[in-house]
Amino acid sequence: MGEFDVIARYFARPARHAALGIGDDCALLQPSPGTQLAISTDMLVQGRHFFADVDPRTLGHKALAVNLSDLAACGAKPLAFTLALSLPNINQAWLAAFADGLFVLADAHGCDLIGGDTTGGPLNICITVFGEVPVVDGKSQALLRSGAQPGDDLYVSGTVGDARLALEGLRGQLSLPAAVLAAARVRLETPTPRVALGLALRGVATAAIDVSDGLLGDLAHLLERSRTGATVQADNAIESIAAYTAYTRATSQFVINLSKDQWRTLALAGGDDYELLFTAPPAQRAAVEAAALAAQTPVRRIGQIKREPGLTLVDAQGQTLPNHYQSFDHFA
Amino acid sequence: MGEFDVIARYFARPARHAALGIGDDCALLQPSPGTQLAISTDMLVQGRHFFADVDPRTLGHKALAVNLSDLAACGAKPLAFTLALSLPNINQAWLAAFADGLFVLADAHGCDLIGGDTTGGPLNICITVFGEVPVVDGKSQALLRSGAQPGDDLYVSGTVGDARLALEGLRGQLSLPAAVLAAARVRLETPTPRVALGLALRGVATAAIDVSDGLLGDLAHLLERSRTGATVQADNAIESIAAYTAYTRATSQFVINLSKDQWRTLALAGGDDYELLFTAPPAQRAAVEAAALAAQTPVRRIGQIKREPGLTLVDAQGQTLPNHYQSFDHFA
Repeated sequence: MGEFDVIARYFARPARHAALGIGDDCALLQPSPGTQLAISTDMLVQGRHFFADVDPRTLGHKALAVNLSDLAACGAKPLAFTLALSLPNINQAWLAAFADGLFVLADAHGCDLIGGDTTGGPLNICITVFGEVPVVDGKSQALLRSGAQPGDDLYVSGTVGDARLALEGLRGQLSLPAAVLAAARVRLETPTPRVALGLALRGVATAAIDVSDGLLGDLAHLLERSRTGATVQADNAIESIAAYTAYTRATSQFVINLSKDQWRTLALAGGDDYELLFTAPPAQRAAVEAAALAAQTPVRRIGQIKREPGLTLVDAQGQTLPNHYQSFDHFA
Repeated sequence: MGEFDVIARYFARPARHAALGIGDDCALLQPSPGTQLAISTDMLVQGRHFFADVDPRTLGHKALAVNLSDLAACGAKPLAFTLALSLPNINQAWLAAFADGLFVLADAHGCDLIGGDTTGGPLNICITVFGEVPVVDGKSQALLRSGAQPGDDLYVSGTVGDARLALEGLRGQLSLPAAVLAAARVRLETPTPRVALGLALRGVATAAIDVSDGLLGDLAHLLERSRTGATVQADNAIESIAAYTAYTRATSQFVINLSKDQWRTLALAGGDDYELLFTAPPAQRAAVEAAALAAQTPVRRIGQIKREPGLTLVDAQGQTLPNHYQSFDHFA
């Protein structure tokens, strides 16, 4: 089975949002009048972003999910994507499962595969995704990293820290109860891109970024682009960890024996969360709640934007905490 | 030096054709009114598409060139590209040379780097490129593979076969005079995407494809999409090999001791040529010549489209030749 057979068999499907899909030198995409195209690309490498023995179905899901998460952070509506795939060998069962995981998520978002490339080589998955953002009165409605204002509330969606908890469990660094590991592993392997929330936050949020490298690390990018600082309530952030709330607070004893500092590390520097970190003025609190409800995605207020550059971490009593929570860097 | 430093130092440059370039979750591209976006992606893997010790400057050139060649085959005007890069280590001299080769070609085509991703892992380069095609009276002006008509002439641009000649020389399969290898190696390592020719052929050519996997292999894709067949003059095609004309015909003796059959293999199945293979009605011969002149790119008529499916190879005397010229498949 050669390169063209792989594409024809597993990846060639009719495109609905493209003027021309797979099978020519280029795909042709005709953006709707009055819109901009939002574009993002992510590369996933075995041993870096996933284990060699990962279920190919979850890998197909995650490869697209991390890209859709970038569209979500821009408030863009998914349209289409390209897929470049380097494969060490042609394993038909693997390809079928990978394609299935990929297309189930793609279909859920109405996002068409419109082109790609397949080659032999170490396993590597590169997806480039395209979304649409309206331009109203000459002004793009995209959510950017650069719009945060002093006084804005800082929010994070869903749960953060669970993906890293699963990673540490799978690596054997933490010993976790089976049910905890299983639940956290779903967050690591099949993250939910917050596309609906990103769309609902257009016109409400002042800035947004997706949390892929760790909450504080990605917050630093948002602050840098917005030329502002922030105060983050660390103990509010850890309430975002599903494992923390489910297994620490709901029972009378600690099932997972982690220190407060370890919980903070998971929430603040875990990485691989693919949640939205965003800002909005306090006057918009009801609108943020309405957006969260419409998107069926919980959001949590974890801090505030301030004029002075830099990040201040505080505990539940408002006491300043030393910030030794390092972001996850793919070269580390 | 981490991921973000690599991007900031070597790849972050102001975008001219994008509403928003590098530095946010997505780039924002605003296509001109009345245009379609042409999109193509290509992945280059060490050991498959280039040698480990290749000059990083030529690698930067080639990684973008193969993508621009896809735009050329569509008659699309280059606008922008994204770059995803997996690197085994951070070698600053290597990165500087790679970026230089990349940007010299990008600047020559007014094509902006608008986004990307950098990670650790086996060397892998994935570029997705964006071009613009006008839509006139609701009809896309893109050159497609599917438009060839019975009776159309078949053309190939520039030179084919030289890249494969260089590859065989570098692999030690062929012993080549140093001057021959040096000249052919330029074609292998720094191919010229035929963007100007693709633009000039809009409204003239009926179908086009870029020759990346070998002339006959890529012709088969064009014929399949056009539901036609073709007759190819093999001995006319070999006149397209620069090494053949320069070193075989211009001197009184054969400097390169290849059989006619070997020359045919180079021209018809060489691969890595990044030339345009295109069709046009005989009534457009003057227009094709004018396009070639305007684009300063030689073109050669090497055959004809016929109604009956299938490919007929003929020699200079019009005698049918057996077709044992296999296309280069990246899984072979």
